[in-house]
Amino acid sequence: MEQHKIAVVVGSLRAGSLNRKLAKAFCGLASGELDCKIAEIGDLPLYNEDIDKQPPQSWTRFREEIKAADGVLFVTPEYNRSMPGGLKNAIDVGSRPYGGSAFAKKPAGVVTASPGGIGGFGCNHALRQCCVFLDMPVMQQPEAYFGGVTDAKFGPDGAIVDDGLRKIATGFAHAFADWVRTIKLARAALAPDPTGAGA
Amino acid sequence: MEQHKIAVVVGSLRAGSLNRKLAKAFCGLASGELDCKIAEIGDLPLYNEDIDKQPPQSWTRFREEIKAADGVLFVTPEYNRSMPGGLKNAIDVGSRPYGGSAFAKKPAGVVTASPGGIGGFGCNHALRQCCVFLDMPVMQQPEAYFGGVTDAKFGPDGAIVDDGLRKIATGFAHAFADWVRTIKLARAALAPDPTGAGA
Amino acid sequence: MEQHKIAVVVGSLRAGSLNRKLAKAFCGLASGELDCKIAEIGDLPLYNEDIDKQPPQSWTRFREEIKAADGVLFVTPEYNRSMPGGLKNAIDVGSRPYGGSAFAKKPAGVVTASPGGIGGFGCNHALRQCCVFLDMPVMQQPEAYFGGVTDAKFGPDGAIVDDGLRKIATGFAHAFADWVRTIKLARAALAPDPTGAGA
Amino acid sequence: MEQHKIAVVVGSLRAGSLNRKLAKAFCGLASGELDCKIAEIGDLPLYNEDIDKQPPQSWTRFREEIKAADGVLFVTPEYNRSMPGGLKNAIDVGSRPYGGSAFAKKPAGVVTASPGGIGGFGCNHALRQCCVFLDMPVMQQPEAYFGGVTDAKFGPDGAIVDDGLRKIATGFAHAFADWVRTIKLARAALAPDPTGAGA
Repeated sequence: MEQHKIAVVVGSLRAGSLNRKLAKAFCGLASGELDCKIAEIGDLPLYNEDIDKQPPQSWTRFREEIKAADGVLFVTPEYNRSMPGGLKNAIDVGSRPYGGSAFAKKPAGVVTASPGGIGGFGCNHALRQCCVFLDMPVMQQPEAYFGGVTDAKFGPDGAIVDDGLRKIATGFAHAFADWVRTIKLARAALAPDPTGAGA
Repeated sequence: MEQHKIAVVVGSLRAGSLNRKLAKAFCGLASGELDCKIAEIGDLPLYNEDIDKQPPQSWTRFREEIKAADGVLFVTPEYNRSMPGGLKNAIDVGSRPYGGSAFAKKPAGVVTASPGGIGGFGCNHALRQCCVFLDMPVMQQPEAYFGGVTDAKFGPDGAIVDDGLRKIATGFAHAFADWVRTIKLARAALAPDPTGAGA
Repeated sequence: MEQHKIAVVVGSLRAGSLNRKLAKAFCGLASGELDCKIAEIGDLPLYNEDIDKQPPQSWTRFREEIKAADGVLFVTPEYNRSMPGGLKNAIDVGSRPYGGSAFAKKPAGVVTASPGGIGGFGCNHALRQCCVFLDMPVMQQPEAYFGGVTDAKFGPDGAIVDDGLRKIATGFAHAFADWVRTIKLARAALAPDPTGAGA
Repeated sequence: MEQHKIAVVVGSLRAGSLNRKLAKAFCGLASGELDCKIAEIGDLPLYNEDIDKQPPQSWTRFREEIKAADGVLFVTPEYNRSMPGGLKNAIDVGSRPYGGSAFAKKPAGVVTASPGGIGGFGCNHALRQCCVFLDMPVMQQPEAYFGGVTDAKFGPDGAIVDDGLRKIATGFAHAFADWVRTIKLARAALAPDPTGAGA
C-alpha cells in the first residue's frame, strides 16, 4: 500500500500539549498509509516581510518540510475562538514569499481538540478559511471537533486509551489518507503529458 | 471534450438580479465544458421538518435537480454580511432528510458579486462553511469576489461586455470545469471495482 | 425594577422545536426584568426586493414587532453549520428597506442550542456577523452554546428541570437584561438634549 | 471635552507598513477625543503557557499598556484571509493568564486596510470573533474595510491626503470616540454605588 508523507502542524507550544499527544497518537492509527512528521513551529520568528529577504533558518526549514510533504494535517486547540497565534504565524511564514507558498495545492486535514465540549470549532473553521487562500483542498468530512480530550485519554505509551476517541480518530485517519490519495490521483490524471505525446 | 452537468443556484430572487445575469453569462463562457441549468429556489417553502414527511413538490423538484448534477455552482449576492435567506433555505431543503442530502460529495464553486467593492466576501465564506457539513469539496482558487458588478457590465444579449470582468469570469469558469473533472476522476479511481475482480 | 421589552426570534419552525421550548422557559427566568414576546417568522415569504414595494402583511407585522422592542434575543439551532434559512430570511426581511432597518441599534443576545455537544457554535457566530451590519450591539459574555438540550430537559409545564442548564440559562438571562439596560442608559446619556438647553 | 486613552494595535510588523501609517494618521483625526498610543507587538515571543509562570518582560509591558487604556483600536492588514499571526499572538498574550485578561470589557474598534479592493474583510471578522471571547464590546457601525490604501494616500508628514479616505477615516474616528464614551458611561451607571448608600 502506498504511504503518504504528511507534515503535521501542532497548534500548541507547551510541552504537555494535548494536541501534540493527539497528533502523535493519531499518526499511529493509520501508519500503513500515513508517514507523519511534525513540522515544528515554536521557533519561527513572527512573520515580517522586511526580514524575508534573508529569511531566518527556521523559516526555510519549515517551508522545506511543508514542501516535501504530500499533505498537511493541522492538529490544534482553539485560542480565543480562533487559531493560536503561533499556528497562524506558521501559516503566514509558509505562505510567503508571494508566489512561492509552500502550502499551495497540498491536501489538508483539520483536527481541533479541547478539554471542553465545543472541540475547537471556532479554530477549525478559521483555519479552513485560510486554506481557501492557500489553495489547499481540505477534507470536508468527517469533521473533527474532539471535545473532552484530557491527559486521561492517553496511556503511558501515548496511545489513545479511550475507545470512543480512538474509534473516531481512526476513522478520521483513514478518511484523511483516502483524501490525500484522491487529490494525488486526480492531479496526476489532469497533469499535461510530460512526454508531449498528447492524444 | 467531456461536458459536466452543473446545477446553478442563484441567491437573489428579484427579476433583475445582477447575480442571475452573471450566472447566465458565466455558463456561456465555458459552454463546451459546462452544461449549466439554474435550479430555482424562489418557490421553496421555508424548511420545516414537520412538513418533510410529505414534502412539497418544489422541494422534491429542487432535490432532484441537485442530485442529477455533476457539480453545483452558487452565484449570489451578500445580504447582511451572510447568505441571502432564500439561498440558505435552499441549502437546508437540499440537505435533508438526514442521510439523504442531495448535495453530498458534489464538487462546488462559489461566486459572489455585488455593485460595491467587497464583492460579497462575507457571503462567500459563510457559504463555504456550510459546504464543510454538506461534504461538498469546494474549489479554493481562484476565489471569486466580483465587485463593481452593475447592469452596465452586461450587453443586451446578456453577455459580459466589460473586458476585465469577462476575463476573470472566464478564468473561473475553466478552473471550475477542471475542478469538477478532478473530483469525478478521483472518485472513479477510488471506487471499489464493481466487478469484484480486485487486484 | 425596569422591565425591558424583548422580541424573541426562534430559529426552528417545527412544532416541537427544542429552541422554542428553551426560548419560552428562558423568558420566565428573568421575568421581572424581561418582558418577552416571540416574533414569529414561519409565515414570512422569502425576501425579494421586487415585492417590497407592497410588502406582505407578515413582513410589516414582523418589522413592527422588532421596532417595538427594546432588544432582540435570538434562540436557534444550527443548520448546516450556519443559521437556519428561515431565521436568515427573517433577518433579511427585518433589515429592509435600506435605511429603514427594524433592527438598527437594538441590543441583541444570541443563544444557540442543540442535542449534540457543539451547541450551535457555527450558527452563533454566523448570526453575530450579521449583527455587525445590522448595527446591533451583541452581548459578548456569557456566550451561550447550549449542548445536550433534549426534551428531557423540560418539565410538563415547560420549565427547565435540568439544574445545570437552568443555572446557566438564568445567568445568561440576567446578564442579557443588564446588557439591554446598559445600552439604553448609554444611548440616553449620549442623546442630544431635546430641549436644546445644552450645557 | 473628555479624552479617551486608546491602545492601538497594528497588525503588520514591517517598517513601511501601510496600516501603521493609517493608525498614526487616524489618531490625529480625533485628537481632541482620542489619546492614542501604539502598543507594540513585534517583540512578543509566541505565546506558550509554560513560560507564562515567569512571563517575558515584553508580555508584561504589553499587558500593562492594554490595561491602562480606555479602549483598544486594531488597525491591521489581512494575511491569508485572517489575522496576521503576530496580531493573533498579541491577542493570545494579552488574554492570559486565565482570569486576568487585559482586554476584558474594553470597548474595541476594528479597522482593516489593504491596497486591494476587499479591505481586509476576512481579517476584520476573524478578529471580531475573538472579541466575543475577550468580552470586548466592538463598535458595529461604521465598519472599516479600507481598500485601495497605498503609500500615495499619505503625505510626507503622514497625514491622509486622499479626500475620500480622510473623510471616512474621520467619520470612523469620531464614531469610535462616541462608542468608547458610550460604554464608559453605561458601565459607570451600572456600577454598584461604592458608598453603599444605594436605594
